[in-house]
Amino acid sequence: MSDAGRGTTYREAGVDVDAAAAAVERIAGLARATFGGDTGGVALPIGHFGGAYRLPAGGDRILVASADGIGTKLKLAFALGGIAHRRVGADLVNHCVNDILALGARPLFFLDYVAMGRLEAETLEALVGGMAEACRENGLALIGGETAEMPGLYAVGEYDAAGFIVGEVGPDAAIDGSAVRAGDVLIGLPSGGLQTNGYSLARRIVGLTGEGDEDRRRLAAPLPGGEGESVGEALMRPHRSFLPAMRPLLERGLVRGMAHVTGGGLIDNVPRMLSPELAVEIDPRTWRAPPIFAYLARRGQVSMAERYRAFNMGIGFVAAVAPDDAEAALSALAGSGAAAVGRVVARGGVGEPAVRGLSGADDGDGVGEGWA
Amino acid sequence: MSDAGRGTTYREAGVDVDAAAAAVERIAGLARATFGGDTGGVALPIGHFGGAYRLPAGGDRILVASADGIGTKLKLAFALGGIAHRRVGADLVNHCVNDILALGARPLFFLDYVAMGRLEAETLEALVGGMAEACRENGLALIGGETAEMPGLYAVGEYDAAGFIVGEVGPDAAIDGSAVRAGDVLIGLPSGGLQTNGYSLARRIVGLTGEGDEDRRRLAAPLPGGEGESVGEALMRPHRSFLPAMRPLLERGLVRGMAHVTGGGLIDNVPRMLSPELAVEIDPRTWRAPPIFAYLARRGQVSMAERYRAFNMGIGFVAAVAPDDAEAALSALAGSGAAAVGRVVARGGVGEPAVRGLSGADDGDGVGEGWA
Repeated sequence: MSDAGRGTTYREAGVDVDAAAAAVERIAGLARATFGGDTGGVALPIGHFGGAYRLPAGGDRILVASADGIGTKLKLAFALGGIAHRRVGADLVNHCVNDILALGARPLFFLDYVAMGRLEAETLEALVGGMAEACRENGLALIGGETAEMPGLYAVGEYDAAGFIVGEVGPDAAIDGSAVRAGDVLIGLPSGGLQTNGYSLARRIVGLTGEGDEDRRRLAAPLPGGEGESVGEALMRPHRSFLPAMRPLLERGLVRGMAHVTGGGLIDNVPRMLSPELAVEIDPRTWRAPPIFAYLARRGQVSMAERYRAFNMGIGFVAAVAPDDAEAALSALAGSGAAAVGRVVARGGVGEPAVRGLSGADDGDGVGEGWA
Repeated sequence: MSDAGRGTTYREAGVDVDAAAAAVERIAGLARATFGGDTGGVALPIGHFGGAYRLPAGGDRILVASADGIGTKLKLAFALGGIAHRRVGADLVNHCVNDILALGARPLFFLDYVAMGRLEAETLEALVGGMAEACRENGLALIGGETAEMPGLYAVGEYDAAGFIVGEVGPDAAIDGSAVRAGDVLIGLPSGGLQTNGYSLARRIVGLTGEGDEDRRRLAAPLPGGEGESVGEALMRPHRSFLPAMRPLLERGLVRGMAHVTGGGLIDNVPRMLSPELAVEIDPRTWRAPPIFAYLARRGQVSMAERYRAFNMGIGFVAAVAPDDAEAALSALAGSGAAAVGRVVARGGVGEPAVRGLSGADDGDGVGEGWA
């Protein structure tokens, strides 16, 4: 710029447009690497005002879309740095994939929003790199996004990220739970960890304060019963995509309803696939939760009601199948750790709990943090 | 909950799931009010894991999607409160509408992401209420979103918000700028204010510190040349939707290329509709910028190069039309304040600036903050 240096500059105000442009060019490359293969619908190169995705001619179809964030699992990524940024990027994509999977949708494309106090190119690249990798694994294209530098809104070294996914399902193939019947078997798929919910409570229980060195020390402590895994490793376990496991069941038409166990836990999310006259009985003895849950529950003296609403307690995704299909479904899921965890029952009335069996926790009303 | 009160609770950790559920129910009502009319494609009620939108059978089509934020204009909303939250909610939707409009797309649906340190129901309702109103005005449905409570990441009273839009355009109707030719006339549409870019610089120039009372005092000061408008009112002017003004031109096939003037200003955004062998000559004497721009430029001693990159300087949207169509286009835009602001010219080479005429500012390279 011919006369830069005189007067107030955007850079002095905390926004470096040139550095942003360079970083954005790098993440555009990561996005391009998600084009092609299953994602051949990308219709315009990166750099336009919007991403574009071609849908071939066809009959009626339903687009299914969802927006999500990572929650305060981000605070762990800030404390741990490096690969942790990549991990939460993948978590975000997988969270979104699972949300539209719960309606039976096949993912098409993804966009991200990342806001940082000061643009840190390495962190941004790790974060978006994790997103791009998860996009490739799930067969969806990362077609655009927004990177915002917002000095004063985020602390140095901190950021927030949101993801937005669009998928599609045939006009009569959307699985909204209306096919679920009393007697159906609930199949639970293991989460491996907290996915991306309950981290504010977990951080409080572990005693994380946001002070880097002290937090890292606490996160490095071995997890009781964790066979050498540290508390931090257990907390940073990925939010899995359930698409590979569930796809064969969906293709065979074995699924009547699905729930992604996000904010609100089993208590609030399983009822989202139920009509008001149905409830579920879940037996927590049917699966073995990863040791992080027992550790958090014991150390925080978290009540039963609280733990099944704040945490997924080891079940990341639930599918309802007809009793006659349960064996075929479990056999198709062999190796995934899936188990029959309960069944659908008639509900006494809308005043009755929609989730029973999680002792002391039976007050589910079917409302979680997400609102669609 | 039967045993709440013993042990660590999610609420103590700063997340109140019940309050969240109540607030979410209120904003779900706001979203439902955007269904119907032009937005009859909504295929599932609010409350599922994703929003759903039915596309009728048809030929090839292209979905156009964009993600955006509000930037640090949010800091003004935090200082001003009340209606300002509603205003920035509408800004977010209009920003997204304009981005896909720049590719010729008609908006279909919108999702939001809102993250707050502590969920404040009134603020959330104002913010999402502004989004819902702008969705209705632009004929798109608010089909879902995510509301995250993230204690420790956002200061009390602060939040961030991102918007995601999906629109569609016919298979050969996407306007990617490839039709723009040397000699085309550039038509500029007035922005009215800063839209949603340049606020970190503007806040620094005005001397906003984040300290509420002092900031409100500075924002209440009369704007020189503002005919009674305060600095705060001028800074809070809406980010307009250019869809109503541009739709008739698009329907008549009068537009060869469009640019939404966001982060990076005219300098970085106009080149996004140009092939590398083209440049534009813009004559800033052809429009009268709102007084806030002269005020910021003078008070901050902002260089010419800087002001045309940090701010839109009064032009919010640019369209390129064939010379023979310029009169018809301007006549269709009568009453909108649109003016011929320049023309497309041959570029000497990729080393030459893509934007000329903004004295001292001719270093545009076509890379803004958004990356798609």
